[in-house]
Amino acid sequence: MPYVNIKVTKEQEPITPEQKQRLIQGVTDLLKEVLGRGPKTTVVVIDEIDMDNYGIGGETVAVRRQRGE
Amino acid sequence: MPYVNIKVTKEQEPITPEQKQRLIQGVTDLLKEVLGRGPKTTVVVIDEIDMDNYGIGGETVAVRRQRGE
Amino acid sequence: MPYVNIKVTKEQEPITPEQKQRLIQGVTDLLKEVLGRGPKTTVVVIDEIDMDNYGIGGETVAVRRQRGE
Amino acid sequence: MPYVNIKVTKEQEPITPEQKQRLIQGVTDLLKEVLGRGPKTTVVVIDEIDMDNYGIGGETVAVRRQRGE
Amino acid sequence: MPYVNIKVTKEQEPITPEQKQRLIQGVTDLLKEVLGRGPKTTVVVIDEIDMDNYGIGGETVAVRRQRGE
Amino acid sequence: MPYVNIKVTKEQEPITPEQKQRLIQGVTDLLKEVLGRGPKTTVVVIDEIDMDNYGIGGETVAVRRQRGE
Repeated sequence: MPYVNIKVTKEQEPITPEQKQRLIQGVTDLLKEVLGRGPKTTVVVIDEIDMDNYGIGGETVAVRRQRGE
Repeated sequence: MPYVNIKVTKEQEPITPEQKQRLIQGVTDLLKEVLGRGPKTTVVVIDEIDMDNYGIGGETVAVRRQRGE
Repeated sequence: MPYVNIKVTKEQEPITPEQKQRLIQGVTDLLKEVLGRGPKTTVVVIDEIDMDNYGIGGETVAVRRQRGE
Repeated sequence: MPYVNIKVTKEQEPITPEQKQRLIQGVTDLLKEVLGRGPKTTVVVIDEIDMDNYGIGGETVAVRRQRGE
Repeated sequence: MPYVNIKVTKEQEPITPEQKQRLIQGVTDLLKEVLGRGPKTTVVVIDEIDMDNYGIGGETVAVRRQRGE
Repeated sequence: MPYVNIKVTKEQEPITPEQKQRLIQGVTDLLKEVLGRGPKTTVVVIDEIDMDNYGIGGETVAVRRQRGE
């Protein structure tokens, strides 16, 4: 019954339902393989964060993207 | 001063303001009753998560809902 | 399949296993009653935080407790 | 490489990109100054929560705002 | 620069440093493979939770383990 | 009533109560200054994470520290 929370930025190209399914499946398989935990009750929550709301190194990701990073 | 975070999926029927008030009141009362903590500074945050972004047992809730689960 | 995280301070009197069971049961029942969600896959995680690591109003709870609050 | 999550309510006046940048910069500087940690890999995520979804003292912030608090 | 938080219970057999490294590497690779994000600034935090503090279906995991589940 | 969660690694030199007080005070002041929010009900929680449990760039911080990083 592991719980996993993934936070990623909302970039110009939205994350597709298929990619989300692959992330959820992949993390669930990984926990089963490495720890033998789950998979039936493994919960995964994906949070998509605006680039203005996500900062690294003291700058918002939005500012870094404007600079081409 | 407990802090509580509740994550639930956004289903077809939206969660009403009254239901959110009942959840917040209920959790705050529970913490007061069981632990004698709060209630004045008990903070509760409810996150409503898209079904594509919430996974259980390796599948997104959206996929499970399409299958009638 | 709601997910709930409860954060409370570690006070002088430890929280007993029975109190934790009552919190988990209480929150699970509340979500079933108010939203009709769960209960089988409702996950609840309780974090107990040192008083030095928990702040409110700009002060650690440890400082407030020394002042009798 | 500290990680910081800030949750605030969405009030009538939206939080501007400049304010978000100041929060991210300010928290990153604070961690560098107090702990000597980061700043290059310090991650800050700001969550803006609807007033119906944020409760304090057993009430949603929306209810408190209607009462002028 | 994704952020991932994994919460698992502390079981009788402790999780080894090698298993933690495999989880961190595995999640980082998964995010690179599926979303092309990271890996240099991907942050992963693993929380190990006492069985009394982790509940599913209204019961603590400790109670379920005593019942052989 | 903002809520802030700070996650940092447990390094060889423990973080002192004074440093924790400065972090809590600093973040509370920052939110007051930038957003005019709080400070009385601003909650700050500091999580100190073992180096084996904290990963960046696919490696645990423990592995990076052994390499002198």
